Amino acid sequence: MAAAVLACDWGTTNLRAWTLDAAGKVVGDRDFPGLGVSKLDPGEAEARFRDEVRPALAADGLPAILCGMVGSNLGWTLAPYADAPAGLDDLAQRLKAVEGPDWIRIVPGVRCGGFNGQGDVMRGEETQVFGWLAADRARCEGRRLVCHPGTHAKWMLVEDGRLTRFVTAMTGELFAVLKTHSVLKSEAPADDMAAFDAGTAAAGEGDGLAARLFTARARVVGEGRPAEETPSYLSGLLIGAEVASLPGLLGCRGDEPVSLLGDPQLCGLYARALAARGVSADVHDGEAAAIAGLFALYERARR
Amino acid sequence: MAAAVLACDWGTTNLRAWTLDAAGKVVGDRDFPGLGVSKLDPGEAEARFRDEVRPALAADGLPAILCGMVGSNLGWTLAPYADAPAGLDDLAQRLKAVEGPDWIRIVPGVRCGGFNGQGDVMRGEETQVFGWLAADRARCEGRRLVCHPGTHAKWMLVEDGRLTRFVTAMTGELFAVLKTHSVLKSEAPADDMAAFDAGTAAAGEGDGLAARLFTARARVVGEGRPAEETPSYLSGLLIGAEVASLPGLLGCRGDEPVSLLGDPQLCGLYARALAARGVSADVHDGEAAAIAGLFALYERARR
Repeated sequence: MAAAVLACDWGTTNLRAWTLDAAGKVVGDRDFPGLGVSKLDPGEAEARFRDEVRPALAADGLPAILCGMVGSNLGWTLAPYADAPAGLDDLAQRLKAVEGPDWIRIVPGVRCGGFNGQGDVMRGEETQVFGWLAADRARCEGRRLVCHPGTHAKWMLVEDGRLTRFVTAMTGELFAVLKTHSVLKSEAPADDMAAFDAGTAAAGEGDGLAARLFTARARVVGEGRPAEETPSYLSGLLIGAEVASLPGLLGCRGDEPVSLLGDPQLCGLYARALAARGVSADVHDGEAAAIAGLFALYERARR
Repeated sequence: MAAAVLACDWGTTNLRAWTLDAAGKVVGDRDFPGLGVSKLDPGEAEARFRDEVRPALAADGLPAILCGMVGSNLGWTLAPYADAPAGLDDLAQRLKAVEGPDWIRIVPGVRCGGFNGQGDVMRGEETQVFGWLAADRARCEGRRLVCHPGTHAKWMLVEDGRLTRFVTAMTGELFAVLKTHSVLKSEAPADDMAAFDAGTAAAGEGDGLAARLFTARARVVGEGRPAEETPSYLSGLLIGAEVASLPGLLGCRGDEPVSLLGDPQLCGLYARALAARGVSADVHDGEAAAIAGLFALYERARR
């Protein structure tokens, strides 16, 4: 079937693009790892889209819908945040139109008060959440606790189909800087599940993280554990501390089931850390959710 | 008065040396920032001591006592850990003699079971604690909670003059790697006390640190606070989370008074963070304590 819309998840480090038919089915796709907005000069996004992204996948003039950091002041044009609580219709009504003859729309991010009054923001994860909700109507009933792990993990509360609150945890970034720049540095892969489990056990209730982190050092210098285990232990410790604390910061009980949305492998680690605490979790592919969310917003806006 | 002993606090990044008279009074001192053990090749410490450190301060053959990482396998020679609980006499009996005609002794570090069975270690802080205890006999009565802040902060429980347990928190290192390598990076000084206080307030009870850290970003991008405040806010947040959590990890109540021992400026920040939680603290100079501890150990061993 012919392409009806060009859909892009255009983030800080990567641009992923799909053409979708009139039913939302993928008919083409391309990755542009060189076009993450952090790699672009100011004003460069529009030209790269028109000269590279669209020609690779679609005819000129095909409608396009984009989500992610492309809507920040580092991206193409600013798409002002929608305020939580927000539903799919709120986002569809606030799509930012790009100037020019073509139908090109950018999905706004979402802003909320945060857990301590400092405010919190997201750009991109909201599209995945609404795609995940659109894929199964039953998810729009009652309350859902959704976690999108990553460099800056998002824990989101969805109530009756609306995104009501969220909190960001910089767990992935902590892992990266500690693994690369601290006394815990190591180039070993984080694939030792026994060490990961030891890390989640050492996470306790997520308090005293600076002390718990030092146990990753002490187990090597004091207990003679192999240094190659450190990245796996560190990963388990940081993820364990996150899953122990974040539900409470959102006002949820610690035993509520969690829906994990994002990279399947990373979601699997979170599910493992939650299971160690006796919490059930279900894993959902973030890419499929992004596509579904972009298509749902396109459909609403074109109606 | 004539020098009786050469005393050195020889750590990872610095070597500080003093000559002391027979009453323990300082009669000379020198810093050797280029001689921290992390900057030395294996086997280099002895030569640098004999060729540079001792000639700068003392005659050949003057007794010498050294503490810190110089007693690790990265230093001069391994001084095996004493096990906690340990008192001044335990350390004096375990001083490691350096081979050769001169009286040169290295203070052992201390090892304990840690708060979660991973074990924990220190080298250098034990000498400061025993110097602090030796300076006032009243400190050897009952229970004292002592904190030595730094790259790897030590929280120590002293009971009736003996070091019974301790826990390390890598707070200073977290501050350094986040300030240098993360989305929170900034070259601004951490001297804005209003931002520091906002950080301690955001530390809560020390849980959910990865989420609380992200508030340092959110307050800039979401609330429009100046990015120059970030290092001060980050410092308050990390120290606040540490003082909220570490007493509990040692089995202490959160409201027990804390004796701070170390760099006076850094101790002042800890006292401020403790005061914000209603906890009283007294500050003691770490250098004076190191000198007193080295002298007390020298005296015991020469008796």
